Amino acid sequence: MTQHHQIILLAHGSSDARWCETFERLAEPTVQSIDNAAIAYMELAEPSLDTIIADGSRQGTEHFTIIPLFLAAGRHLRKDVPAMIEKLEAEHGVSIRLADPIGMNPKLGLAIRDVVEEELGKSAN
Amino acid sequence: MTQHHQIILLAHGSSDARWCETFERLAEPTVQSIDNAAIAYMELAEPSLDTIIADGSRQGTEHFTIIPLFLAAGRHLRKDVPAMIEKLEAEHGVSIRLADPIGMNPKLGLAIRDVVEEELGKSAN
Repeated sequence: MTQHHQIILLAHGSSDARWCETFERLAEPTVQSIDNAAIAYMELAEPSLDTIIADGSRQGTEHFTIIPLFLAAGRHLRKDVPAMIEKLEAEHGVSIRLADPIGMNPKLGLAIRDVVEEELGKSAN
Repeated sequence: MTQHHQIILLAHGSSDARWCETFERLAEPTVQSIDNAAIAYMELAEPSLDTIIADGSRQGTEHFTIIPLFLAAGRHLRKDVPAMIEKLEAEHGVSIRLADPIGMNPKLGLAIRDVVEEELGKSAN
């Protein structure tokens, strides 16, 4: 990956700081191991998607891949985010690819099974 | 785990069948490898939490652990689900433990990193 490509982990956002902290912890292994990866929020929290794209574009990034931190695609990912992307591409002259939400990847189902197995250990008594 | 204990993977629910299908696929590895595990929805889809607890209780299950298929805890998990649980415990004479949402477990952050690395392969050209 060149510096001209940035990964954005997109979360919904909330006015509840605890909610955002959970997403920041979820993003941490990615941000720590992958250059040029950042978290952004659709709404209600900063940094917004708008902020991240504007900053990246100013620093010369031309291509962005958005990976939604959503388990499934609902209205936000089918309608709202594509509309935001169209506007941001026109505004900043960049290309933005919207990947599937993380929950569409089979790795997530396996991680969930591992979490459940850990919970079963706790409930064993 | 005895037959008297059931694991419930709780998703929000949606009137969009594609949304529910994604959650059913996410639940599949768990349901296939763990006895007495089922998916349930808070609202807008079946089987509801109510249905699963009522059925389990009728079959002799006394203890349930709910593992929320949510990345973070918002209003639903802090208020709505605890209220539903209180009502269901009284109604069916069972005990229901609400576990942390899956996104609170560090395994999820690692799975997200793996998904991002897979996406990077796709974007490499």
